[in-house]
Amino acid sequence: MSNSDEVEDVVPTDYEIAQSTNMEQIWELVEPWGLTLDDLQYFGEYTAKVKHHAIERLREEAENKEKNLVLVTGMTPTPKGEGKTVTTVGLGQTLNHLGEDAMIAIREPSLGPVFGVKGGAAGGGHSQVLPMEDINLHFTGDLHALTSAHNLIAAMLDARLSQGNDLDINVNDVEWERALDMNDRALRKTVVGLGGSSGGTPREDGFKLTAASELMAVLCLASDLGDLKERVGRIIVAFDTDGEPITVDDIEATGPVTMLLRDAMKPNVVQTVEGTPAFVHGGPFANIAHGTNSLIADKAAFGMGDYLVTEAGFGSDLGAEKFMNIVCRLGDMTPNAVVLVSSVRALQYHGLEQWPVDYGEIDDAGVEAIRDGFENLDRHVSNLLKFGVPVVVAVNRFPDDSDEEVQAILDHCQDDLGVRAAESQVFEHGSEGGEDLGEHVIDAVNESDEEEFSYLYDIEAPISEKIERIATEIYGADGVKFTGGALDDIERMEELGFDDFPVCMSKTFHSFSDDASKKKAPKGWELEISEVYPSAGAGFIVALTADALTMPGLPKRPAAADMDIDEDGEITGLF
Amino acid sequence: MSNSDEVEDVVPTDYEIAQSTNMEQIWELVEPWGLTLDDLQYFGEYTAKVKHHAIERLREEAENKEKNLVLVTGMTPTPKGEGKTVTTVGLGQTLNHLGEDAMIAIREPSLGPVFGVKGGAAGGGHSQVLPMEDINLHFTGDLHALTSAHNLIAAMLDARLSQGNDLDINVNDVEWERALDMNDRALRKTVVGLGGSSGGTPREDGFKLTAASELMAVLCLASDLGDLKERVGRIIVAFDTDGEPITVDDIEATGPVTMLLRDAMKPNVVQTVEGTPAFVHGGPFANIAHGTNSLIADKAAFGMGDYLVTEAGFGSDLGAEKFMNIVCRLGDMTPNAVVLVSSVRALQYHGLEQWPVDYGEIDDAGVEAIRDGFENLDRHVSNLLKFGVPVVVAVNRFPDDSDEEVQAILDHCQDDLGVRAAESQVFEHGSEGGEDLGEHVIDAVNESDEEEFSYLYDIEAPISEKIERIATEIYGADGVKFTGGALDDIERMEELGFDDFPVCMSKTFHSFSDDASKKKAPKGWELEISEVYPSAGAGFIVALTADALTMPGLPKRPAAADMDIDEDGEITGLF
Repeated sequence: MSNSDEVEDVVPTDYEIAQSTNMEQIWELVEPWGLTLDDLQYFGEYTAKVKHHAIERLREEAENKEKNLVLVTGMTPTPKGEGKTVTTVGLGQTLNHLGEDAMIAIREPSLGPVFGVKGGAAGGGHSQVLPMEDINLHFTGDLHALTSAHNLIAAMLDARLSQGNDLDINVNDVEWERALDMNDRALRKTVVGLGGSSGGTPREDGFKLTAASELMAVLCLASDLGDLKERVGRIIVAFDTDGEPITVDDIEATGPVTMLLRDAMKPNVVQTVEGTPAFVHGGPFANIAHGTNSLIADKAAFGMGDYLVTEAGFGSDLGAEKFMNIVCRLGDMTPNAVVLVSSVRALQYHGLEQWPVDYGEIDDAGVEAIRDGFENLDRHVSNLLKFGVPVVVAVNRFPDDSDEEVQAILDHCQDDLGVRAAESQVFEHGSEGGEDLGEHVIDAVNESDEEEFSYLYDIEAPISEKIERIATEIYGADGVKFTGGALDDIERMEELGFDDFPVCMSKTFHSFSDDASKKKAPKGWELEISEVYPSAGAGFIVALTADALTMPGLPKRPAAADMDIDEDGEITGLF
Repeated sequence: MSNSDEVEDVVPTDYEIAQSTNMEQIWELVEPWGLTLDDLQYFGEYTAKVKHHAIERLREEAENKEKNLVLVTGMTPTPKGEGKTVTTVGLGQTLNHLGEDAMIAIREPSLGPVFGVKGGAAGGGHSQVLPMEDINLHFTGDLHALTSAHNLIAAMLDARLSQGNDLDINVNDVEWERALDMNDRALRKTVVGLGGSSGGTPREDGFKLTAASELMAVLCLASDLGDLKERVGRIIVAFDTDGEPITVDDIEATGPVTMLLRDAMKPNVVQTVEGTPAFVHGGPFANIAHGTNSLIADKAAFGMGDYLVTEAGFGSDLGAEKFMNIVCRLGDMTPNAVVLVSSVRALQYHGLEQWPVDYGEIDDAGVEAIRDGFENLDRHVSNLLKFGVPVVVAVNRFPDDSDEEVQAILDHCQDDLGVRAAESQVFEHGSEGGEDLGEHVIDAVNESDEEEFSYLYDIEAPISEKIERIATEIYGADGVKFTGGALDDIERMEELGFDDFPVCMSKTFHSFSDDASKKKAPKGWELEISEVYPSAGAGFIVALTADALTMPGLPKRPAAADMDIDEDGEITGLF
């Protein structure tokens, strides 16, 4: 995601910047950060995985050193995104530029969306990670390994079902769909097992994007290979005819699935255009899962630098809430500062009375629309303060933004909200464009008190209470209405012993509410929960406000149609 | 595939041999063979891809040097396989041991079969390629790249079909199925596009194993990236309502698909347990495709060594015939010797009156059964001699084979058939077990006359005549019976301009005939051809004798169930 649409006449394209950067060999780049050649499993000269023994060592080293955790999140975004990854990469570069030792950790892109709508997921402009083409295509094969592992479970389950069914698998209660790392709407709902007795048992099935596989969430929350294997084994894949869960262990797939994920579990380290080391590892969905990069990458980063800048998906109502309540809890981490990314465009988008017909309407909306949009920003800020972590608002400046517009946001944050705020021009200028933001972040971290950090809910509270806390405290709902079988689901979760799991909310990211068309900060509404199910391997309970779309589709003319490669291997149209 | 079942009490397991080998760093290993560090895109220390610029250079260097091509093929095998890969790897090692500069090129394993039935595909014993675990699992991601590329075509086709259908795609005439590198019978026949209008167009579909994708055949026959792109573009994915073909070019997928295959197109180089460099690249099915490793690997190997030992799938009636008539023709190569792998077990298997109940019955069958099985070996030998290439019969010796049994085969070959023959013990003893075979191969190559090599059929001959030539000259049929729509298919192929393509036969490998139960060398039968279709990208026409199974299934308790990994990453049960 990048600002490139707006600035292509002003600065070079992402691709040109990437091509003009002299990358350092990855083993030389990370050597001052405490990793030797022997610690790395390298993929060419510029990408490496960190081997398990080195992760162990970094984890030990981290115990006795400064660990400043900075989370980058955002206000409720426009469909174009407000530049969270750009800000994350740019802030990491800036902290180094200002004399700190900062590492970056972000999610790795999924191949599926790359072909659907234009845009990679490696930052942009002068704040991107390299080598961009590799990262956006096959990279180190983590997504492919997850696809294979996911579909091995499915194949072993169907083999068991259709050849004797000794586990009494209920053919109408198979939870484990298949997965592909490809946007393919035709695979969303399928029937499999056709073609007579040699073709298995006919049943309804579907495919999800690999990023939406529970295995992805498991990989991103596991502390090591042993923990990964335990989590894989307890994933629920189906229910038997008595309604009892059937797990990956039950179908004897735990060993080979973990084996397939052996290398995927090792975090990938690359570099930014300014030579800051960045982990790019894991990329779970931010709706039915927690939406942040792997914990193992975070833990390794703590052993390398004094700062870790990381990013959470969607707006803070989803990404940051899950990062605090799920990831920090499971990983025993404490954030020292939160950067909330905002933009003139996003504030105007919320401020406009009518949903804009095109972006031109937003661009002309002026300062008044910005002020009308503050409601959205304000709720994000007050929400984040509830966790006891200092907040810094970053205004990600686009070339067309006027000084007056930017200043209106900065003034509001400082004067009305009493929080730190700074303009960010890291897209256009790299670390030099982030100096003001970086200094505010350092100050916020220095002022932070880890004792003040608290989760939003008690993990021992009843499931319905945890959902209610998030709905009222974060989303601003008056309460929660459980519909369909949601209450029965919760009862079942409690019977199965999952009542002490944190809750992973699946809600639209277009609004604080469960209605995507409601902008600003809606009041006077109830959150509707239609279904609750366990991600037993990941270790959280998913609460659905509506059908979660886990397999996107391609448009009639997808971005892929404009991608090309010449006979010398030069790629065009990817960014 | 290995001999390990029989010898586990005698020699260490494949895994133990692999683990006890001190591998050399791949860039040091290949340096004397003319590749520098800059020529390699490495994956860890022991695996590398050869970059396109280096391939170009090797191709030029090959023009002015000795290029001795040795093809390893086999007699009609038992279901356990007779050790073609072991012989290929062992012979390559032996030739180096005897002072020649020999390279090896073999296919890369598909992940699917690894989980279904026990057995990797990297040779075995003291004649295997390393690192075995990587090669048998994700390796360098070539199969994964092919899976992605294949399914991108499918997704773009369905997006086009369900959103306007401006190409008038006939929903009942979509040729392009989806693909996974996983044995999964439940995906063999499916219905996709369900779930209402947002889920695409409902239609019948299916999945094939990635190795059976036409993209795999295309990758293995393309000379470079430019040629790859041209071949990808002309693949036929569907027919329109007027019956006209719709290609990958028509759905605008050529560019992104070729982009996804950029790295997969680069051949992978690894080492054997004795340090012989081996290309392991590409693995097309040997029934609906040609069943040999990539041409680009062969071409690179010719620039590195004086000998290239390569392997063709199944028995010589399929693998060698296709290698000669398709691969050598498209790649402009001339074989200098053919090694025909036989075994005591295979000859007894053919010699027994009744299909054996278990392998114990074969083991006790004695010399008489061997003699009764010569018919099969004899036809393979006489077939191969028709191409004008010297034949060396290798008797792959298993530990239980008696001297008398082995000698009976050697005597028959030398005395009755007048061809060279040698015992091979490369599984148990590496190159020292192949000395006799290696010397015969060197002599055969020295005696060979490239002028005498000839294809079995004229490429300009009518399609039906090409099929008849193969049926009568190789399979020993009296003639060909075209059933179903086969004659119409041929007429259509001629209209579409595919009449000057070579023919790729899809027939059982269990028999010379199209009836898997007929052993030895069946006579007095007609080959039945039920369907003919083009692989327009690969550049051949496929003639089916029956439904070709392109998606295998898992047994009720697959080999995967016995695979495991511990918390230190040690894998068990993979081999």
